[in-house]
Amino acid sequence: MKTYKIAVIPGDGIGKEVVPAAIEVLDTVAKLDGGFQFEWTYFPWGCDYYLEHGEMMPEDGIETLKKYDQIFLGAVGMPELVPDHISLWGLLIKIRRELKQSINVRPAKLLQGLQSPLRDPQNFDITVVRENSEGEYSDSGGRIHQGANEIAIQNAIFTRKGTERAMRYAFELAKNSRQHVTSATKSNGLTYSMPFWDEIFDEVKKDYPDIDTAVNHIDALAAFFVMKPHAFDVIVASNLFGDILTDLGGAIMGSIGIAPAANLNIEREYPSMFEPVHGSAPDIAGQGVANPIGQIWTGKMMLDFLGHQQAGIKVLNAIEATLASGVKTRDLGGTANLEEVKNAILKNL
Amino acid sequence: MKTYKIAVIPGDGIGKEVVPAAIEVLDTVAKLDGGFQFEWTYFPWGCDYYLEHGEMMPEDGIETLKKYDQIFLGAVGMPELVPDHISLWGLLIKIRRELKQSINVRPAKLLQGLQSPLRDPQNFDITVVRENSEGEYSDSGGRIHQGANEIAIQNAIFTRKGTERAMRYAFELAKNSRQHVTSATKSNGLTYSMPFWDEIFDEVKKDYPDIDTAVNHIDALAAFFVMKPHAFDVIVASNLFGDILTDLGGAIMGSIGIAPAANLNIEREYPSMFEPVHGSAPDIAGQGVANPIGQIWTGKMMLDFLGHQQAGIKVLNAIEATLASGVKTRDLGGTANLEEVKNAILKNL
Ligand SMILES: CC(C)[C@H](C(=O)O)[C@@H](O)C(=O)O
Ligand SMILES: CC(C)[C@H](C(=O)O)[C@@H](O)C(=O)O
Repeated sequence: MKTYKIAVIPGDGIGKEVVPAAIEVLDTVAKLDGGFQFEWTYFPWGCDYYLEHGEMMPEDGIETLKKYDQIFLGAVGMPELVPDHISLWGLLIKIRRELKQSINVRPAKLLQGLQSPLRDPQNFDITVVRENSEGEYSDSGGRIHQGANEIAIQNAIFTRKGTERAMRYAFELAKNSRQHVTSATKSNGLTYSMPFWDEIFDEVKKDYPDIDTAVNHIDALAAFFVMKPHAFDVIVASNLFGDILTDLGGAIMGSIGIAPAANLNIEREYPSMFEPVHGSAPDIAGQGVANPIGQIWTGKMMLDFLGHQQAGIKVLNAIEATLASGVKTRDLGGTANLEEVKNAILKNL
Repeated sequence: MKTYKIAVIPGDGIGKEVVPAAIEVLDTVAKLDGGFQFEWTYFPWGCDYYLEHGEMMPEDGIETLKKYDQIFLGAVGMPELVPDHISLWGLLIKIRRELKQSINVRPAKLLQGLQSPLRDPQNFDITVVRENSEGEYSDSGGRIHQGANEIAIQNAIFTRKGTERAMRYAFELAKNSRQHVTSATKSNGLTYSMPFWDEIFDEVKKDYPDIDTAVNHIDALAAFFVMKPHAFDVIVASNLFGDILTDLGGAIMGSIGIAPAANLNIEREYPSMFEPVHGSAPDIAGQGVANPIGQIWTGKMMLDFLGHQQAGIKVLNAIEATLASGVKTRDLGGTANLEEVKNAILKNL
């Protein structure tokens, strides 16, 4: 029997509640499958850890993580007590970057039993492939002058390697999907990065003659998520554009609380990290009312990446059956608490 | 009687159709008012001009425009024949920049008679104030190395002056609105520009103790446009974030075809430019079916800026009455053509 060693970082806020729920679901589906099992090792890193130790994770944290097959993370952030640039860049973004998780994949899909805030959505099923290691998030820039003359510069750095990697991954996904890739650009306004992005897209697509393509500016694309989300299959986007589109994707599904995500090291040299799109939601943390579906669906993405697609489909089906039966948390207009949603999903497995 | 000298640039595609329609409406409302009139001077600048002369406007174009009170523009772009970076940076963005139209204002409002693609929108009425002269659109950057090692850098440049100007304008607008300003940031990902933006927002808001404020990351804010657009009054955003939010604003209203915009030189040193959010729509150009409402509502914004708020309200009321009576173009689910919509608006004046 195959055993996967998973590093678990519940993190902050509702992360501590939704992660154990998702683990129960994953253990159950593994047992049903019979061919594999998980070994979970918890790491109490996050803002509480920071308040005690002055750092978000121990100095050898990254080295420690490298020993595991994958990482399962809840949410990071307690903005009232720890500034975002410390909590995120000291844990979440640090892991993404140092473990070279350069591809972020996030689906947005109309789920049965969920009411989309769109009036009359046709069935949509989008996969956003987000470049996850550079671009607008390059952490490069500076300031000059003081007072009234102060200027800040932020440099967005795009490498051919990083850009091409994201695009090729998108085309590969499209092969097993509906053979369509849309590139998110803004070359009419951003005159260096995005023309470069467009050029590389034009080159890469030549290697995939069977895949149809489209190119949309990010402003139009955001509007299209509202007007015709069913028109998209795979979308490839820069770090920032992918960030914006995937929150929008969560919104049109019905709640950010259900949107899953995977930070992939596609070379499989280091562990990948699976973390939902939602944050730590300090306002509802500790009350047992958080929506565990984002984290559970994120678990499904981990199953897929480990090669257990059948088990993954089971999890998604159980989520849909649960929603269809009306067992929903408050963010989805229901009255159930976390425990009730989790139990319904376990039953539907 | 006050006479306003307006430079008219219909531009490309449907710009040539919607601009004359809007001018008829503006002339009519001026006549009804009796206190002012317009003197329109047409400039045939745009992509056709480029194909003939090799430039989007004559070399002394900017100097010519300075002689007018305001500029009324349709749309620019014929991507099949003229690359965007030529058509836009040679006309639209050039005018914005050289005439120091450093504030872009765009409303998004639930109109009576219009079906929003949102299932159950509460009444929303948002004004986005977009920084219009710098930031991500600074046209600064470059490339290094070739082939597999090529790298492109785009510099987003934020000055305190430009940032503060946009924010103060937003607070001033909020005074006459619902006393609320939201700042669009992304300081958790963009580590130089957006912390600077946040600092300036914290300073500026101290001068407006009666105005409530909120700060949202752009990813969350995009999602909120779908989930709770009624929660916003005035939003201040960088050039790129404002661009994205205002297309989204058009989408939740029901069509990009109705969204208006103003590029303001708030110092009134140079003319301002009024142009709708939509583009030249080459696919439907020349058929007489374009929606003239974006251009007409844009005319209302020009009336406001000229101090004729009463006339402006009349125009907006006539638009709403027309929509409520079911006279709509195809993009809004109707069957009317441009002429019919224009005539209905004229009648409702
Ligand atoms: C055409 C393009 C350069 C422009 C912009 O991004 O400013 C447009 O999208 C707009 O919003 O006016
Ligand atoms: C928390 C933040 C830095 C992060 C991002 O922008 O990448 C988040 O929004 C996400 O999408 O995972």
